[in-house]
Amino acid sequence: MHILPIKIYYEDTDAQGVVYYANYLKFFERARTEFLREIGYKQKELMEKGAIFVVREVSVEFKKPASLDQQIEVHTQIIKAGKVSFDFNQEALTKEGNLLCGGVIKCGCLALKDFKPKALPSKLYQGMKSLL
Amino acid sequence: MHILPIKIYYEDTDAQGVVYYANYLKFFERARTEFLREIGYKQKELMEKGAIFVVREVSVEFKKPASLDQQIEVHTQIIKAGKVSFDFNQEALTKEGNLLCGGVIKCGCLALKDFKPKALPSKLYQGMKSLL
Amino acid sequence: MHILPIKIYYEDTDAQGVVYYANYLKFFERARTEFLREIGYKQKELMEKGAIFVVREVSVEFKKPASLDQQIEVHTQIIKAGKVSFDFNQEALTKEGNLLCGGVIKCGCLALKDFKPKALPSKLYQGMKSLL
Amino acid sequence: MHILPIKIYYEDTDAQGVVYYANYLKFFERARTEFLREIGYKQKELMEKGAIFVVREVSVEFKKPASLDQQIEVHTQIIKAGKVSFDFNQEALTKEGNLLCGGVIKCGCLALKDFKPKALPSKLYQGMKSLL
Repeated sequence: MHILPIKIYYEDTDAQGVVYYANYLKFFERARTEFLREIGYKQKELMEKGAIFVVREVSVEFKKPASLDQQIEVHTQIIKAGKVSFDFNQEALTKEGNLLCGGVIKCGCLALKDFKPKALPSKLYQGMKSLL
Repeated sequence: MHILPIKIYYEDTDAQGVVYYANYLKFFERARTEFLREIGYKQKELMEKGAIFVVREVSVEFKKPASLDQQIEVHTQIIKAGKVSFDFNQEALTKEGNLLCGGVIKCGCLALKDFKPKALPSKLYQGMKSLL
Repeated sequence: MHILPIKIYYEDTDAQGVVYYANYLKFFERARTEFLREIGYKQKELMEKGAIFVVREVSVEFKKPASLDQQIEVHTQIIKAGKVSFDFNQEALTKEGNLLCGGVIKCGCLALKDFKPKALPSKLYQGMKSLL
Repeated sequence: MHILPIKIYYEDTDAQGVVYYANYLKFFERARTEFLREIGYKQKELMEKGAIFVVREVSVEFKKPASLDQQIEVHTQIIKAGKVSFDFNQEALTKEGNLLCGGVIKCGCLALKDFKPKALPSKLYQGMKSLL
């Protein structure tokens, strides 16, 4: 499982005093980017090869809010790796391990030129498979 | 059904050239705010009375991307109104009516002071009920 | 002078309860986009022709904060139109005309392919000139 | 001088393929927060004591764009420490030391309850003074 530590800044919060709900999806995307980097892929290199990853579906429950200056963690686990799509289980937790929010993020690979489904580079596909 | 027109600006897009996925949740939140305003409630007034709305769960599918300068619409429909929680069906569509993304957003009412569940103001609850 | 009304949503605010300072620059950019649209240019069309506008310099004073649900206005006035650069005076004000923040935003035109300075399309240059 | 490393994610970029201009101000704010943390202050603790920091003025030049997956640094130096206001010189640079953007950020201390100027906690004022 991949773990990304994240610190909460003013930009992440809203007038309720806690993290704005959509921003957890930013944190999840940062974590997926780092997860891919760790298995050898940079989003930018993929884009230069004409492939982009997109989110096809999110299903997330929000349990507790994180607040300013809090140090949290995003846990990322790949749970499905197909030829053109792949799914993650992602959770944001406090340092003490309390669940803030979490759920399933379904992603797909598209061709940058026409946004049509495109097979994952095979080494990336193998890398994901090996982590299932 | 409530309809909110939204224009796509640079701030909404990312390096893929289209709207960043988490930003649709911002658009949905703007639309829920306007929906509430239309049935007589301002988020700020509610907050001053000690009640806040939070998102408890999102379940959204992303079908097609919106891009810079595009004019889109967010359609918002209330599908459940309980004493402390209420659910919306929300969709982002092109002006021509093509689905960009959509799903169910489950919300709850909390007390601002302790983030514990709190009954909706009864007029708001009645207002929501009447729109089911 | 171009006037763009803007409503403040949760996404615009932070844990101080007011609009996060960097977000006024988003509002200013929305207003410049609408200003350009009014004199006949869409940022996306320009980009498709290989030209992009970038901000070269900002100099902004923050006087008073805007808060949730507030309706504000962004006033935009072109104050210099050169061959490859152009400057705006932009202000955010309350509906009653009280200054929230404002200053000078200096922009430039670049070629998308290499980010090198590029002459403005001449009709756009003329359009800006006529509004000085 | 305080140095904060920052990685560029999709959320930071826009359809021009590079970092959206207002987001550098987010990076600068993250860096000021870390700067304060290093001299012993958390923004949240200050807020709980009724003091908040706000930006009074920004004057920033944008020289070169940062792009997706780039690792950059924000350099922060305090250049003035007054009783109720303090100024920073902040720059974003590539890892190789090339300037991306930079300028002066003038901040102030306010009382949270009425947004009126308020003296900095004296230990914080002394801490800042010692770094001039």
